[in-house]
Amino acid sequence: MSRAAELATCTERPGELTRTFCSPAMHSAQQMVGDWFTAAGLQCRLDAATNLIGRFAAAQPAHVRPRTLIIGSHLDTVVNAGRYDGALGVLMGLALVELMAETGLDLPFAIEVIGFCEEEGVRYQTPYIGSRALVGDLTAELLARPDEAGVAMNEALRGFGGSPDRLAEAVLDPASVVAYIEPHIEQGPVLERLELPLGVVRGIAGQTRARFVLTGTAGHAGTVPMDGRRDALAAAAQLVLEVERIGRSQPGLVATVGHLLVAPNAANVIPGRVTLRLDLRHLDDPIRRAAFQEIQERAAAVAAQRSIECRLDWSEDQPAVACDPALVAAIGQCVADAGWQSHEMASGAGHDAVILARRVPVAMLFLRCKGGISHHPDESVTTEDVAAGLDVLVRLVGRLAAAEASS
Amino acid sequence: MSRAAELATCTERPGELTRTFCSPAMHSAQQMVGDWFTAAGLQCRLDAATNLIGRFAAAQPAHVRPRTLIIGSHLDTVVNAGRYDGALGVLMGLALVELMAETGLDLPFAIEVIGFCEEEGVRYQTPYIGSRALVGDLTAELLARPDEAGVAMNEALRGFGGSPDRLAEAVLDPASVVAYIEPHIEQGPVLERLELPLGVVRGIAGQTRARFVLTGTAGHAGTVPMDGRRDALAAAAQLVLEVERIGRSQPGLVATVGHLLVAPNAANVIPGRVTLRLDLRHLDDPIRRAAFQEIQERAAAVAAQRSIECRLDWSEDQPAVACDPALVAAIGQCVADAGWQSHEMASGAGHDAVILARRVPVAMLFLRCKGGISHHPDESVTTEDVAAGLDVLVRLVGRLAAAEASS
Repeated sequence: MSRAAELATCTERPGELTRTFCSPAMHSAQQMVGDWFTAAGLQCRLDAATNLIGRFAAAQPAHVRPRTLIIGSHLDTVVNAGRYDGALGVLMGLALVELMAETGLDLPFAIEVIGFCEEEGVRYQTPYIGSRALVGDLTAELLARPDEAGVAMNEALRGFGGSPDRLAEAVLDPASVVAYIEPHIEQGPVLERLELPLGVVRGIAGQTRARFVLTGTAGHAGTVPMDGRRDALAAAAQLVLEVERIGRSQPGLVATVGHLLVAPNAANVIPGRVTLRLDLRHLDDPIRRAAFQEIQERAAAVAAQRSIECRLDWSEDQPAVACDPALVAAIGQCVADAGWQSHEMASGAGHDAVILARRVPVAMLFLRCKGGISHHPDESVTTEDVAAGLDVLVRLVGRLAAAEASS
Repeated sequence: MSRAAELATCTERPGELTRTFCSPAMHSAQQMVGDWFTAAGLQCRLDAATNLIGRFAAAQPAHVRPRTLIIGSHLDTVVNAGRYDGALGVLMGLALVELMAETGLDLPFAIEVIGFCEEEGVRYQTPYIGSRALVGDLTAELLARPDEAGVAMNEALRGFGGSPDRLAEAVLDPASVVAYIEPHIEQGPVLERLELPLGVVRGIAGQTRARFVLTGTAGHAGTVPMDGRRDALAAAAQLVLEVERIGRSQPGLVATVGHLLVAPNAANVIPGRVTLRLDLRHLDDPIRRAAFQEIQERAAAVAAQRSIECRLDWSEDQPAVACDPALVAAIGQCVADAGWQSHEMASGAGHDAVILARRVPVAMLFLRCKGGISHHPDESVTTEDVAAGLDVLVRLVGRLAAAEASS
């Protein structure tokens, strides 16, 4: 907890916490965490994409090539962030290794604690830059992309000690990895409501993003009778309520209209056009896609009923990502062994685990956060909950070690 | 019709029609119309507030002081306007006098054709500057108000040939005025739907304007379950539909949410706050006020049901203005005499008649406009409908002359 507080002083904006990709604040943070890694006996390095990695060697004889258990999260933040989103996963990885070192247990695998250089997508409007490097997904097009100041990503990397020409070296060999484990604050209110410190993530919800444009007829609010109107906002209001109703119709489904613009948006003019954005998530892709289908049908029906044009302007489908079932079960068992009720849940937000799941088994452990608040300075976790999480991680390493040794 | 086309060339923005208070375009328009007035035998002057007035003298012997029938509308326009809103009323007044002159009829009153200098409120964000002068309502505070460039209204008037220190001379003496008659395009679709060229205005609807602020709790669209949300937009959607339902519940009532803003308005964030503006109009003030009461009650109920805060942030009540019942009846009779069905209706928009009604009997004659479109370059009326309107005005002058002579 004190490390989280100290790490939060590495910021590019005084008075708040903002730490973006390849910034001086990120450099300070990597120095600080790197010093902690080294003091804990980890071999510390930056990979070609400037991810910070601390390696805790295995106890295997020299002729065996041990695999690696990776644990961590990201070190960058959103603008005006809290101190736990990302950072807590890295610091829990470090604390875990310190605890393992104290036990003196001989591990059949190495543990690498990773602090990804970029997950939030602030600087290049694209997320997961750090974890993409580990799965070989930093494309030439992405590397050439400029930030707002016109600095291309590969220039930024180079200036920060990265090696955009040697990114292949950062890519994981799946055969050498036991798993990627990501501890993370929940960023939602579910665990708090259940009065549980920990949640076992079954997977990261798939997401539909879509934009609808409703076009009616603008007109004078005083002179056009009610029965002659084609009011785009009234139609949009119906659609917003349909989205909410459909979101409530399935456990685990969340459906949101977060963005809505009215044109011309003048108090005395009947709205002629409304643009709205839909965000729809569920762990089960068929459920989500059926809900999207239903929303489109309801939108068409509302539009037809009101003689309004409704156009699905744009949409994007991001499939759900499953955590490794054996890891989910193992973590659940460890939670139960530690004396807590094991609660399996979906992650509604994306995480580095989404990317790593393309190559290696992944799992996530959620920690309760106060009020579900995240991406905000009020982000808060308790020392007791972090201790419970570490207890579970220690147990998990024991289980994985036993399995690795017997395989 | 050709004069309306020619007058539309007096604009301050090439390629569109925009003619605001005390602009060079208004100067050109007043010159053009003034020349037409003079050619038609009218005595032409600018009053102290720069309203253009053409006087057609009465045929009374010199020792009698004849009263005056005023007819007209405004010569200014909105930005990117149509050519008939306002201007048509002035040009119909002129055409009426030309027709009266042709008949050689001796009138017991003078006719003054007035082109108000300002009605739309573009330059000083306050409407009716021209007609306010005729009722003595150009206050010192209003005259000191600056436009966007910092030019105070009295400076603008002075530079345009007005006399802000002699505004008292522009104020009407009610005893000397027979009536104010304003021909105007309907600016709505009612007459077109009824297939009638003309409408007799019973009064100008009263208006409630109000702003509501709905405050819920912003949150992550992916991580906050549906049953834990306080979504300000979903609440606002219900309110928009309640406003529409209540607007439909009474003949003649119009209720509009034309303006709505969402905060933070990001696709992946549950809306935390929505601001919306209500516009509510009816000719009968008690009906309008009861509807506003019902809307407030429904807003409170929706907010309570959703545990959201709903605040009526601001509201304004503008009472309805009745046209003179005897004039309404007389115009209705003239419409019928001309062979048309007389349709009495409310004006949903405000007009100079609203202001003049404080001092003198007023009446308005509406002309059908294409598609109900106004405040737009597509504004359109037919020559036939204007001819029908002139026929009715000629008949009306005859009726009023008979009444005036016998009184």
